[in-house]
Amino acid sequence: MASNRGVVYLGPGKVEVRSIDYPKMVNPQGKPIEHGVILKVVTTNICGSDQHMVRGRTTAPTGLVLGHEITGEVIEKGKDVEYLNIGDLVTVPFNVACGRCRTCREQQTGVCLNVNSARAGGAFGYVDMGGWTGGQAEYVLVPYADFNLIRFPNKEKALEKIQDLTMLSDILPTGFHGAVCAGVGVGSSVYVAGAGPVGLAAAASAQLLGAAVVMIGDMNPERLRHAKSVGFEPIDLTKSDKLEELIEAVVGVPEVDCSVDAVGFEARGHGAQHVTEAPATVLNSLMAITRPGGAIGIPGLYVTEDPGAKEEGAKQGNLRMRFGLGWAKSHRLYTGQTPVLRYNRQLMMAILHGRLPIAKIVNATVISLDEAPRGYHEFDTGVARKFVLDPHGMVKKAA
Amino acid sequence: MASNRGVVYLGPGKVEVRSIDYPKMVNPQGKPIEHGVILKVVTTNICGSDQHMVRGRTTAPTGLVLGHEITGEVIEKGKDVEYLNIGDLVTVPFNVACGRCRTCREQQTGVCLNVNSARAGGAFGYVDMGGWTGGQAEYVLVPYADFNLIRFPNKEKALEKIQDLTMLSDILPTGFHGAVCAGVGVGSSVYVAGAGPVGLAAAASAQLLGAAVVMIGDMNPERLRHAKSVGFEPIDLTKSDKLEELIEAVVGVPEVDCSVDAVGFEARGHGAQHVTEAPATVLNSLMAITRPGGAIGIPGLYVTEDPGAKEEGAKQGNLRMRFGLGWAKSHRLYTGQTPVLRYNRQLMMAILHGRLPIAKIVNATVISLDEAPRGYHEFDTGVARKFVLDPHGMVKKAA
Amino acid sequence: MASNRGVVYLGPGKVEVRSIDYPKMVNPQGKPIEHGVILKVVTTNICGSDQHMVRGRTTAPTGLVLGHEITGEVIEKGKDVEYLNIGDLVTVPFNVACGRCRTCREQQTGVCLNVNSARAGGAFGYVDMGGWTGGQAEYVLVPYADFNLIRFPNKEKALEKIQDLTMLSDILPTGFHGAVCAGVGVGSSVYVAGAGPVGLAAAASAQLLGAAVVMIGDMNPERLRHAKSVGFEPIDLTKSDKLEELIEAVVGVPEVDCSVDAVGFEARGHGAQHVTEAPATVLNSLMAITRPGGAIGIPGLYVTEDPGAKEEGAKQGNLRMRFGLGWAKSHRLYTGQTPVLRYNRQLMMAILHGRLPIAKIVNATVISLDEAPRGYHEFDTGVARKFVLDPHGMVKKAA
Amino acid sequence: MASNRGVVYLGPGKVEVRSIDYPKMVNPQGKPIEHGVILKVVTTNICGSDQHMVRGRTTAPTGLVLGHEITGEVIEKGKDVEYLNIGDLVTVPFNVACGRCRTCREQQTGVCLNVNSARAGGAFGYVDMGGWTGGQAEYVLVPYADFNLIRFPNKEKALEKIQDLTMLSDILPTGFHGAVCAGVGVGSSVYVAGAGPVGLAAAASAQLLGAAVVMIGDMNPERLRHAKSVGFEPIDLTKSDKLEELIEAVVGVPEVDCSVDAVGFEARGHGAQHVTEAPATVLNSLMAITRPGGAIGIPGLYVTEDPGAKEEGAKQGNLRMRFGLGWAKSHRLYTGQTPVLRYNRQLMMAILHGRLPIAKIVNATVISLDEAPRGYHEFDTGVARKFVLDPHGMVKKAA
Repeated sequence: MASNRGVVYLGPGKVEVRSIDYPKMVNPQGKPIEHGVILKVVTTNICGSDQHMVRGRTTAPTGLVLGHEITGEVIEKGKDVEYLNIGDLVTVPFNVACGRCRTCREQQTGVCLNVNSARAGGAFGYVDMGGWTGGQAEYVLVPYADFNLIRFPNKEKALEKIQDLTMLSDILPTGFHGAVCAGVGVGSSVYVAGAGPVGLAAAASAQLLGAAVVMIGDMNPERLRHAKSVGFEPIDLTKSDKLEELIEAVVGVPEVDCSVDAVGFEARGHGAQHVTEAPATVLNSLMAITRPGGAIGIPGLYVTEDPGAKEEGAKQGNLRMRFGLGWAKSHRLYTGQTPVLRYNRQLMMAILHGRLPIAKIVNATVISLDEAPRGYHEFDTGVARKFVLDPHGMVKKAA
Repeated sequence: MASNRGVVYLGPGKVEVRSIDYPKMVNPQGKPIEHGVILKVVTTNICGSDQHMVRGRTTAPTGLVLGHEITGEVIEKGKDVEYLNIGDLVTVPFNVACGRCRTCREQQTGVCLNVNSARAGGAFGYVDMGGWTGGQAEYVLVPYADFNLIRFPNKEKALEKIQDLTMLSDILPTGFHGAVCAGVGVGSSVYVAGAGPVGLAAAASAQLLGAAVVMIGDMNPERLRHAKSVGFEPIDLTKSDKLEELIEAVVGVPEVDCSVDAVGFEARGHGAQHVTEAPATVLNSLMAITRPGGAIGIPGLYVTEDPGAKEEGAKQGNLRMRFGLGWAKSHRLYTGQTPVLRYNRQLMMAILHGRLPIAKIVNATVISLDEAPRGYHEFDTGVARKFVLDPHGMVKKAA
Repeated sequence: MASNRGVVYLGPGKVEVRSIDYPKMVNPQGKPIEHGVILKVVTTNICGSDQHMVRGRTTAPTGLVLGHEITGEVIEKGKDVEYLNIGDLVTVPFNVACGRCRTCREQQTGVCLNVNSARAGGAFGYVDMGGWTGGQAEYVLVPYADFNLIRFPNKEKALEKIQDLTMLSDILPTGFHGAVCAGVGVGSSVYVAGAGPVGLAAAASAQLLGAAVVMIGDMNPERLRHAKSVGFEPIDLTKSDKLEELIEAVVGVPEVDCSVDAVGFEARGHGAQHVTEAPATVLNSLMAITRPGGAIGIPGLYVTEDPGAKEEGAKQGNLRMRFGLGWAKSHRLYTGQTPVLRYNRQLMMAILHGRLPIAKIVNATVISLDEAPRGYHEFDTGVARKFVLDPHGMVKKAA
Repeated sequence: MASNRGVVYLGPGKVEVRSIDYPKMVNPQGKPIEHGVILKVVTTNICGSDQHMVRGRTTAPTGLVLGHEITGEVIEKGKDVEYLNIGDLVTVPFNVACGRCRTCREQQTGVCLNVNSARAGGAFGYVDMGGWTGGQAEYVLVPYADFNLIRFPNKEKALEKIQDLTMLSDILPTGFHGAVCAGVGVGSSVYVAGAGPVGLAAAASAQLLGAAVVMIGDMNPERLRHAKSVGFEPIDLTKSDKLEELIEAVVGVPEVDCSVDAVGFEARGHGAQHVTEAPATVLNSLMAITRPGGAIGIPGLYVTEDPGAKEEGAKQGNLRMRFGLGWAKSHRLYTGQTPVLRYNRQLMMAILHGRLPIAKIVNATVISLDEAPRGYHEFDTGVARKFVLDPHGMVKKAA
């Protein structure tokens, strides 16, 4: 039996690379499956949502193998995998989805009804998402492979752009979903809350969708500098409590057509209050600046349980929202995990045809699997980087 | 100069029919307009949202002439009214809209940018909605008449169905908007919170849109009985704190495809807690029962200021929402005033062709203008009626 | 090995019930599959599109087992069928679809890219549609079963409504698709060309979608009488060459909001010319009556090759369309096979909740498998019936 | 009374600049209007559709003042113009629309029901489009000004980009509408038929909408060279009868996701047959190359009467379409005049923020009003230019 190694969560603030089981063709309940493939992992990225677990803000059990952003090569396939071949290079959506239930049929793969016995929606290497082993590892099992995987049409060319294509598994579609839900189109003015990788991906998506002007707000000076260097209007939230004023300084009016929350429940207050956590602050500020009749895309994660919250209500996922304001402006709010499969084929085409240099925009930084713990630590300090693990040294070799 | 009489708000709990000015062809700022018509009011209904003002839950000034649900006959028209003629019988959307701004051009007449200097969106006879005189009166001015008004194709036939057609000015499109936003379509299972007139209109709309099953929840036994008598599944919210269980008892699963909030910010708790006000209770319960990937239509009014609220936060329109739950289920939330013009033509066609007996469904009850104060009082007690004022006795005569 | 019998095409005008092979778990290329189920056929209907083959208007080879409208019971399943169990009663979309290609993922199962090596789109028992054996038989193989099949939630209740539910495999979604594509919604005025089963299903769908008035045109007096008896406005096309005039006589204007072509390429001329075939006549008449800005749904079949056509161009599927007229009215035209899976779950819900008595509307007529040749013959004479085959006598027993 | 001069059609092949009436505030029926403005024309472009008239391919009467692509300055306004001021610089949609009828309310301003007594839809300076005087002149009347006109937010900045902004009145929204209707989105592969100004605008729009690859086909070598020089993949239709092969040579497959017909009824055959006119040749070739499930946007003009057609059927707008092919591929076809108002605000924003250098892409070429006849002549020879008339020398001065 082949060996395997992966990034394992060992308690708040602690991850290690350890030996783990080589994938078997069984589901988390131990039932054999015919629809899976085993991938040799070519790239797998560290995600901001992994940090929620690693910081101890969730109920993730120790021993969990992390990683839901996966690109790999098919090295073994089940009997019912008809349209993939050994050797194919594929992108894996972070959502595990069956392709056979009502929601999958309707392209809502983020809330698949079959892959998680606890609730709708599955993911690799994530607490409460169905128990699928994570992919920050050398090898990983992907179920329902014909449905979930997209094969890159040309392997060589794909390897050349692998640092861009690796973003297809999560943050690029997630940012794109945020922009699409916010109603971004040709000529839109857009504000993205959060200059981390998802925020940058949302901003890049807005650009690709034809936005006239794309602003991105944060309190982290390094991230703001980086956002500016890749072409977005930085909004420094430490400068004012009133986001309206900061927006007006850029576009001449205190409102935008579309806004995206790429922060989620760990938001902190703006301006003077920014040292304390304020879970609804982003949502409330977006209702303040979004035009009447506009929409708010909310790819940033909000949770049902937040044991580490400062406020009692927030522990149950309760937020103090200024909902009356949104209502008065006829806002539409779009929440939830991104259904990656709805977008990744078209985004892949954009990357392959040179229209979306996403690796540069999120500042992709390739490190080895063994360097993952350091990557987690640095990412948590707020560096303007997106860490890409390279378990087999294939990215280094391709570069 | 002709005389006029109308229903005037005189302070919490107090309305009277008084002499008021006959309409002039000027806007609330006193500027002459060429696009208005003066209507002889044929019907004008008392609305649940009028009650918010009359109960003193808003900052409405005394002296306000009430009424935004208006059907009337054109008796005078401005120079730039080209497509309406004297004598035409017309339905008036409750939203005042210019038909010339960006949002009106995009069919978002609920947030017209020109008719209210304080914020987006105007209405007749309503606090903070632009200062347009209400229509619970004998005569009323309607601006931008060519744009806002829909003429009934056949006056006689329209008068025969006037108790149905009078619902086109507000509650029918409002209920319909709620159903449409909730994603109601053929085969949907639907839950409507609130068995008042808007809730019943939402339920009737869901039915017309092809829903498989339509449930409607309330705590008022008379309204529940009425809802059942017109064909909907009543859900008695006094029976349980857990809406999921009540839903499951009807449809076999503890969830619905689509849900509609026809209650708004004056919601009270369910079950044991229902004596106290609980502004987010409806929203939170709808997130609990709406299927993953589903949508929630929110025509029920939420306000930016609620001076009469029990809770400090709610006074600024802040609600304690269980947003994490909705996020985990990828819900979409649609808020705001209904853009009546987006729907009223097609709903008129449905009524005229006998497909929508809305008067019966909401239990239309015709009273004279002078009886309006009694109508307000009775409606506030929760009777299962929709009061229709008949200022000129034309409805009585037609019946 | 179990035996099997099915309806076999033996040349123009000739079908017979013969012994055929019992289904094997292989695809038409002979490759073993893990995703299939074998169904005991409970109902299977004769379709108008079968007639095109039987009349010799296609290149269908003799020996073809007919039948693409199938409802059945799972009696055997492949290793990769996870969400269906032996004994489940299921509806089968007429389209064979893989659930794994781009178009299937996007709910365009009518043009699946994998199930037909000759072109996009597969079907059971149909010429040029991938070679899948038809289901007018005792037993049939359905591939990609987890994706393609919808299980009825309650078997007993489903058997009680089996004559309605059997329409879910084709004509009901096909009619519904026509109505949806034509933009039918609440309050629409609708014209459906063709009072055969698909036309009636389109009319019933329009009704369920909230249409204000539904007209249905034909030249067959029996079909017109039947259409009227089930609640639609019959339009007798023998009365005038000008469809506009016939429409105006019903709705007061010579146009409709939405129109549906439920006839297809074997159309004949209207009025005096109706003895000759005129393949574009329906399309041209629909452009004449559809309102500016309206849409035309075209579920009626148009073919790429029509060897039996009267006109030279039509043999290559070339039609003389009055396209300039449609262009001047900004029409949208929607063509193609219906993607049944996009609609059948919701239509099933409507049937199960008593909102859609489609069996009565299309005049479902149950006959035995052995009576199939007679059914083909009678249907071809234009009777106002939809023939449902009952291979195992289960429908008769349930009734 | 002020004087006026304009471009007048004087018979096939003949236009002249002549003295014409200064605009009056009346509609074509002579009725005074309150909603109009008189514009000093800043730019007005020669359009390909003007050429149809000038070539004598329509029933345009001599004496017609041409011109429907207009940008101007408000110098006089009617009593009911509330939101425009004297001095405003505005873009004029080529469609005349009332903003008060059903179709205008639904954003289908291309088929306004009120501005043309002969049929739906009006335009300036065009045969059969309502009799509104054209704008290739010094001054022009625009009715329903508050509804139809978009004011540039900053006059100085707008004048700097006037050669781009002048394209907002027609060809840019028209190309954009073609791309949108064809379903162009992020990652799409797109083919545009016709490398004239509308084709280039469609290609630029596709690019702005995020297309992965944009091809543009023509037989004119100069236009192909220009298309290539501004970043599109040129497809030389003289090289092959089979468009599939030309497409495959570029993208590796013989099909595209989306296609746009920017040619219309004066199409000529491809390859060897290209000397003869073949009105359906573009449509048929687009059905051949568009992917199953794809859409075809058809902004190119098709007419109801074409007295100059070579073929008898085509004289009545009848085309020999290979409709069966499109049907087999489930194509959607979108026809008609572009509703400019649905798109021009957002396209203006894109131009003002530097995202759409449309003047360069269509090779805008500014000439004086007096040079218009030469412009018509040169444009008809197929030069790769878009002629912009500058009646008051304001563009020259701004440059």
